[in-house]
Amino acid sequence: VTQLRADAQRNLERVLDAAAEVFAERGADVSVDEVARRAGVGHATVFRRFPTKVALVAAVVEQRMRIVADAAEAALELDDAGAALREFAEEATALHAADRCLVEATAFVAGEPGVVEQRERTLDAVGRLVRRAQDEGVLRTDLEPIDVPLLLMGVTRAAANFRAVEPELWRRYLAIVLDGLRPQAASSLPVAAPTLEQIELARHSVAG
Amino acid sequence: VTQLRADAQRNLERVLDAAAEVFAERGADVSVDEVARRAGVGHATVFRRFPTKVALVAAVVEQRMRIVADAAEAALELDDAGAALREFAEEATALHAADRCLVEATAFVAGEPGVVEQRERTLDAVGRLVRRAQDEGVLRTDLEPIDVPLLLMGVTRAAANFRAVEPELWRRYLAIVLDGLRPQAASSLPVAAPTLEQIELARHSVAG
Repeated sequence: VTQLRADAQRNLERVLDAAAEVFAERGADVSVDEVARRAGVGHATVFRRFPTKVALVAAVVEQRMRIVADAAEAALELDDAGAALREFAEEATALHAADRCLVEATAFVAGEPGVVEQRERTLDAVGRLVRRAQDEGVLRTDLEPIDVPLLLMGVTRAAANFRAVEPELWRRYLAIVLDGLRPQAASSLPVAAPTLEQIELARHSVAG
Repeated sequence: VTQLRADAQRNLERVLDAAAEVFAERGADVSVDEVARRAGVGHATVFRRFPTKVALVAAVVEQRMRIVADAAEAALELDDAGAALREFAEEATALHAADRCLVEATAFVAGEPGVVEQRERTLDAVGRLVRRAQDEGVLRTDLEPIDVPLLLMGVTRAAANFRAVEPELWRRYLAIVLDGLRPQAASSLPVAAPTLEQIELARHSVAG
């Protein structure tokens, strides 16, 4: 039984790794069969654990978002509040920039419980990173926590067409955005950050 | 004959307007039939003028990109070099933010002659806006002209999920990016801007 469980666990990991690889290379528009082939397991093995493609995509997205949430919580341990926010921004953008899956697939599984949980963990930690940096005077005070993931998504997309030819290009645009977040900002931000209600509405208008 | 020509011209405009509307609402993944219905003309009328969907998408994208190129050249007429760049950035982003077509369709028709022509016009004018603002000390000197459209695309995408619930959200992220472009930048940009060769390579890897 233990051997069977170990085999099942190993298969699960192989499927998730294969799915993450295929999604990262080509986006979420790939078949479960292709994932099974890449993982070297049968279609039935994948299908038993992930009866729908949404379930498979959600598992991959959740795994990736857990890394992002871990990075946000790890950054909170740093003494320097400005460095902590920059460190998180770099790690999160590096992960997204290498991986078409996170950006393109997330909208389709945004309501799945495991995905919601990791997003809430991340937003909670980012909220603390933002408040701390603002309290210490190293971050513009009109920034809201929800701005951070949206800005990082923008940075990822600015560089996305160059993923193959200059995979580090996102660093150039992240540096510009981080400079724009300093407390010496010239402008007051002209439009309010999205409210929780707007975030919910946007999620449904994208998913629907 | 003149009447016929006037009719044909009017039909062409109706088709382009209808196509732009449908693309703006729902992206380029719509059929020629749907565009014909919206324009109130027959399938054959659309098909005669635009024998492939690429031709139709290219015509719409070219029309939109001409507005962007016009905005860049108009901005060059302003006396204040900083205001000129900001003015162009706002107009270009406003157009993209309202219009899924430009962002999603451009990659598919990037090599079409009319599209290439408008892109080159825009990049030429943006190059002059950038150099002028740098010469006058109101723009960080390590910015390259090609960074401008990539940053604006990032701003558009940062706000894209909120298009329906807060169509002006892009203004918030544009303000942050523009603050990051001031000459009082904290960082030197850590990665070079894409070269012409990289831009060509990226175009082909996206289109292919």
